[in-house]
Amino acid sequence: MSDQLNYNMEVIKVEKSRINDVDFNNLSFGKIFSDHMLICTYKNGAWNAPKIVPYQSLTLDPSTKIFHYGQAIFEGLKAYKDSNNDVFLFRPDENCKRLNISAKRMAIPELPEAYFMDGLKALLQVDKDWIPTQDGSSLYVRPFIFASGRGFHASPSDEYTFIIATAPSGPYFSGKVTVLIEEHYSRSANGGVGYAKAAGNYAGQFYPTQLAVEKGYNQVIWTDDNTHEYIEEAGAMNIFIRINDTLITSPTSDRILDGVTRKSIIDIAKSEGIPVDVRKITVSEVIEAANNGTLKEIFGAGTAAVVSPISGFGFKNKDYILPELENPYANKLKKRITDIQTNKAEDAFGWRVKV
Amino acid sequence: MSDQLNYNMEVIKVEKSRINDVDFNNLSFGKIFSDHMLICTYKNGAWNAPKIVPYQSLTLDPSTKIFHYGQAIFEGLKAYKDSNNDVFLFRPDENCKRLNISAKRMAIPELPEAYFMDGLKALLQVDKDWIPTQDGSSLYVRPFIFASGRGFHASPSDEYTFIIATAPSGPYFSGKVTVLIEEHYSRSANGGVGYAKAAGNYAGQFYPTQLAVEKGYNQVIWTDDNTHEYIEEAGAMNIFIRINDTLITSPTSDRILDGVTRKSIIDIAKSEGIPVDVRKITVSEVIEAANNGTLKEIFGAGTAAVVSPISGFGFKNKDYILPELENPYANKLKKRITDIQTNKAEDAFGWRVKV
Ligand SMILES: Cc1ncc(COP(=O)(O)O)c(C=O)c1O
Ligand SMILES: Cc1ncc(COP(=O)(O)O)c(C=O)c1O
Repeated sequence: MSDQLNYNMEVIKVEKSRINDVDFNNLSFGKIFSDHMLICTYKNGAWNAPKIVPYQSLTLDPSTKIFHYGQAIFEGLKAYKDSNNDVFLFRPDENCKRLNISAKRMAIPELPEAYFMDGLKALLQVDKDWIPTQDGSSLYVRPFIFASGRGFHASPSDEYTFIIATAPSGPYFSGKVTVLIEEHYSRSANGGVGYAKAAGNYAGQFYPTQLAVEKGYNQVIWTDDNTHEYIEEAGAMNIFIRINDTLITSPTSDRILDGVTRKSIIDIAKSEGIPVDVRKITVSEVIEAANNGTLKEIFGAGTAAVVSPISGFGFKNKDYILPELENPYANKLKKRITDIQTNKAEDAFGWRVKV
Repeated sequence: MSDQLNYNMEVIKVEKSRINDVDFNNLSFGKIFSDHMLICTYKNGAWNAPKIVPYQSLTLDPSTKIFHYGQAIFEGLKAYKDSNNDVFLFRPDENCKRLNISAKRMAIPELPEAYFMDGLKALLQVDKDWIPTQDGSSLYVRPFIFASGRGFHASPSDEYTFIIATAPSGPYFSGKVTVLIEEHYSRSANGGVGYAKAAGNYAGQFYPTQLAVEKGYNQVIWTDDNTHEYIEEAGAMNIFIRINDTLITSPTSDRILDGVTRKSIIDIAKSEGIPVDVRKITVSEVIEAANNGTLKEIFGAGTAAVVSPISGFGFKNKDYILPELENPYANKLKKRITDIQTNKAEDAFGWRVKV
């Protein structure tokens, strides 16, 4: 990937930056937006060249298809700045590829890779000052595409809008995370859209998650919709389960998102000599391991939450507490991935991309 | 339901109507919008009183949750005008109830019934002239709610917008309809959101439907995601299958939309002495009936397409042609329901609502 844009990107800058209004020491997640955004529209059968403009509202007709048919996809990645003020991304090509995998499933025209990669880098150069350096903070980057064509006919849109917006953000979760293993609701179907970062997948999780929150949990762990016996993933994280010394994670499928963090953690764990088993894992197996003391850790892995240790889970009206280990895999793996991401450690995998 | 609004609805009328630009003899479906719309917002924990305003664009921040998480639901019904210029709706209370069923599943705050019913009637009074009277035409009414709050956190919005927009429309399908019985993709999961009119359900159908269209079919008939053995429904229609003299339709479930047309057709058919069987029906049974000549009709039933006879279907690379009957149930039932809707026949069921 070149550092040079291979075409002249139009950049319209803000007259006055909003950056001085921001308290970078007290960032929440995804609530404050940087000065600029990238925008690119699809019309008459083609994506137009992206441009960078001041972060601004969109004007849309009430019949715009996104409101009615949820034809939209997104990505999520983070930009980091090291002590030299150099800017880094983590495996952004994976997000670009996945965006187009999601696009295909949602009948959205695929986006030229260069529009994504060059556009992203150009945007980060313009808004470099917005990248926080505080521990646990980063610039959350949100590329998304939505159906911006009009009409009530339930069919794909003829126009789309691709935007990259960025938000200086603190941690996604605050404090310990407990989860509820879901026995009734489900997130995705065989032959469905679960493997895509399709907008509607997330709305569908809100109500079951609210019910879990009312019961005192932070998140739902989704199981397959047919038997509810297989552990799939959490709201925006893939799930790792450590039994004895082995780290187990479900294989991806058309129901499970192929997370960038998940596959990076698998590689890092292997390189650390941790035995990793990518296989289906049943709820019964986890309960049995909890009961006989071999269940050591559960953690979520995802861009927003990085590596998120789970302190306990509920299943069939019973609560299970995870042991507090001295040197959990989660901490070690989180440090390893974060150090690579933030240019604090060597990157033997070639994942880090300098902007 | 009273004809009087029980509060004073604010109405801001257009300065100049666009109605003279419309060719009412050549209407497509859902592409032209009437002069006004109803709008109602949810903020600080409550729905504000709806008002009627000129149909107009919405201004939304790029972080608005609808773009990212597809938290949106909709309804679809039709308004008709008889030769006396009286305006009628068909079972609008069912749409209102279903909107709130969808709302609950999608973690959207339920809308007060009066806001829906009184708002709808007031809007139709204002835009009465937009209701077409041409055969097969009607005013398509689209109530919808979308997440209008901001932020990249994958959690329910704190603000919502409810809009009713209307579109003078012609038939949804033109010509014969053929369908493909789906063997790989699916529309909904057990414990999922299939029974809700959730925006994302529709986007998820676009790609498999495109594949079917490329093979020469108009629509997909969805089957269960686990075995693909059970007939569920079509894109925006419930499905009826006539074997010998019996009309069979699948029971509704958490995967299947509880269609207003479906339940009305069941009642009308029964009142006509047609044997109706609400039960699960397998693809194998339909194929067997096609092969032994007992399969007489398949038709879809839904607000947009009314009763839509299917002339043939594909399954496992084989095409099956439905016989051309002299007096198909579909025609009879379509006439009966349309006559009730348009005030051309007595309404023994009490379904018609005068606006
Ligand atoms: C459903 C789902 N699973 C898993 C993940 C983790 O994927 P990644 O590590 O690429 O962020 C995400 C979030 O991005 C997600 O939305
Ligand atoms: C998925 C689905 N099934 C069935 C229907 C038919 O329902 P109704 O008869 O209430 O329009 C619709 C359309 O509204 C639908 O979207």
